[in-house]
Order: sequence, then structure tokens, then C-alpha cells
Amino acid sequence: MRRKEFKIEQEEEIREFLQGMSFGFLGTSDEQGAPRVTPLNFVYDQGNFYFHGSHAGGKMESIRQQKKVCFTVADEYALIPSYFSDPELACPATAYFKSVTAYGQAEIVEDSNEKAAVLSLFMQKLQPQGGYAPIVADDPRYRSRLKGVAVVRIVPEELTAKFKFGQNLKEDERAGVTRGLAERNGERDAETLEMMKKYCPYHS
Amino acid sequence: MRRKEFKIEQEEEIREFLQGMSFGFLGTSDEQGAPRVTPLNFVYDQGNFYFHGSHAGGKMESIRQQKKVCFTVADEYALIPSYFSDPELACPATAYFKSVTAYGQAEIVEDSNEKAAVLSLFMQKLQPQGGYAPIVADDPRYRSRLKGVAVVRIVPEELTAKFKFGQNLKEDERAGVTRGLAERNGERDAETLEMMKKYCPYHS
Repeated sequence: MRRKEFKIEQEEEIREFLQGMSFGFLGTSDEQGAPRVTPLNFVYDQGNFYFHGSHAGGKMESIRQQKKVCFTVADEYALIPSYFSDPELACPATAYFKSVTAYGQAEIVEDSNEKAAVLSLFMQKLQPQGGYAPIVADDPRYRSRLKGVAVVRIVPEELTAKFKFGQNLKEDERAGVTRGLAERNGERDAETLEMMKKYCPYHS
Repeated sequence: MRRKEFKIEQEEEIREFLQGMSFGFLGTSDEQGAPRVTPLNFVYDQGNFYFHGSHAGGKMESIRQQKKVCFTVADEYALIPSYFSDPELACPATAYFKSVTAYGQAEIVEDSNEKAAVLSLFMQKLQPQGGYAPIVADDPRYRSRLKGVAVVRIVPEELTAKFKFGQNLKEDERAGVTRGLAERNGERDAETLEMMKKYCPYHS
């Protein structure tokens, strides 16, 4: 697996980011090569992505025709107005965000025990407070429902991460953006400032 | 243009939703039909989507090979735990969300005046407070920068919207979810309750 724009020691940060995000965007394409993008809840486990859905429907049809898929998760932290770093031109207007994109093969999970295990991971992630009977394949309450749900594993061949927090700024521009975020003090601006500091090339 | 899962009189709601979302996910595919999903800031204007970026780079390369693209915007309002409607089984666990997906052709915008107009729409949407010199093609400060940025229009051939707020629930399940959201009272739960009411099939 190749990893671009991000160092391997930051794998834990990728995992943490993905664990904190409830949904991502699946890219599939049909036999004419026309793409389709579907928002989906997902789990990331031991380097693979999983989603579930109906056996029917467009995305499962696409996957049967074309196993190559893409899965992207992104979170926008802050819109950065141009005037934080330039009093005149609109050009520096941008957004700071984290995104992770995986390119890989989609594999349909057929085994009931494995499906139950994957769906249990979904519940642990999205409903960590519990409040349901454990999902096990031989529980008669779950058996037919497990058959009825399609579970798909994406095995990444390539994973890229882009955590954009002004790494390319010159010192005076960085000072402007830092001051601007501190003064604006919006909902996620303090968090964005932390990320700017964490990923600042001068600090690493 | 076909519209599925949504009535035409709700076009204004689609527009409002898109106006309130700063970024979406572009689906492209390469000559082997392998998809790519890229998060991008966007504007939606007069039925078309626009994004901008570097002339180089993967997504512009993909677009030159395959004009068919997909653009999806989604916002998750609430995770709905299974126990809101079922004390026993995990199955009803879900998420309520709005999503809009456009399938269409990507066209590269070449004319400088048109590029300036599109980038002005970006600024009006993402930096409505102003604070920059108006973007006009014959302003020498912007001229070369306008050449340097790629602007792409997506002309939708099909637009689908899915606003999922428990429309398929039975009355007792609906009562459970409504009570659960009201008691939980999370950040967006009141807003989610409003949407449940608005899109409830019994109310329309």
C-alpha cells in the first residue's frame, strides 16, 4: 500500500480521524465508466473500510460490474477568509480540512458470522452506549436479517490523507491567519488553531 | 432532467440545502473506469454546480478523459439509536440526513469573464462579509491568477435528493424516535425533529 502526502507514523492519526467520522462517500462506476458517489456510514477496522446496505440498488449493482472503488471521508474545520492574510485580493480564501481517500477493491462479505462481526463494529462505533441484543449469526432474531443485508469490505491498495492547515503559508500570512482565527473565535476555530500548530512545518 | 425521490416543487429546498453546505464530493473515473472521490468547495447556481482547482492534478486529468461526473452533497443530522424504536434488536439503528446527487457532464470554463463571475459567486457564498477587491477579469491584479485557476461547470442531467427523516416509520416507531430525540436533546436534535415533522408522510 502506498501512502502519499502523509507519513506512516501518522497512521494512528488517520485511524483516529476515521473513528471520529460517522460517514464517508463511496465512489463507484458503471460499465460505461460513469461515476456515482454515495454517502454512507462506515467503519474502518484493521486497515479496511466496511459499509452495509441493500442487496438491490445502484451501488451494489455497480460493485458487481466494477470492483475498483474509492472511499473518501472529509471534515471541514474552518473557512479561511482572504483578508486574514491579504487585505486586498480574494485569492487566499480557502478552507482548512482533513480528508482521507482510499482506492481499492470492493469485496462482498458473504459469511454470516463475519457479517455479524462487522455489524457489531458499526454498533460499537455509532451506538457505543449499547442498548441492543448482541448481533450473533445464530441468534434466530438476527438470522434472516443478516441474510437480507449486504455487507461490503473495501481493501485499500492506496490510502492518501490530506490534512490542510496552512502548511504552505509564509510566516507573515500564518501570523495573519492565526490572529484572524483567534479573533473570530468561531465554533471550531480554537481546534483549527491547534491543528495549524500541530501540522506547522516549522514545528516538525 | 429527471428528479427522483423528490418532487419538483421542493426544488427551492434543494437550492437552500446546497446554499447552506460549503463542500461536496466530486466523483470522476479514469480510462479504466476506476472511480475517484474528491471533496471540494462548490457553488450551485441556476441549476449548475461549479468548482475550481489546479489545472494539473488528478481530477482535471480524469475530467479530460471522462466528462461524465457525479457530485454529491450530504449532511448528517442525527444518529438514531436502535432503542428509540426497538428495545431489543440493533436493526433500526440508522442516521437521518439530507443528500443531493447530481449526475452530469463536466465542462471546463475557459472564458476569463465567466471564470471571474463564478469565482465571485464562491466568494459571495463562502465569504459573504466581503473584504476583498471585486474579482473582474480585466483587473491586472487578477488577470494572471484567473488564467492559473481551472473552473469547472457540472451540468446535471439528473438530480436526485434524499431527505431521510423517518418517513418509513410506523406510528409507534415514530413516536419512539420523536420521544428519544426530545429527551436526548443533542446539538441538532430539535432541528431533526422539525425535519421529521416537515417530511412526515402523514402531514403532507
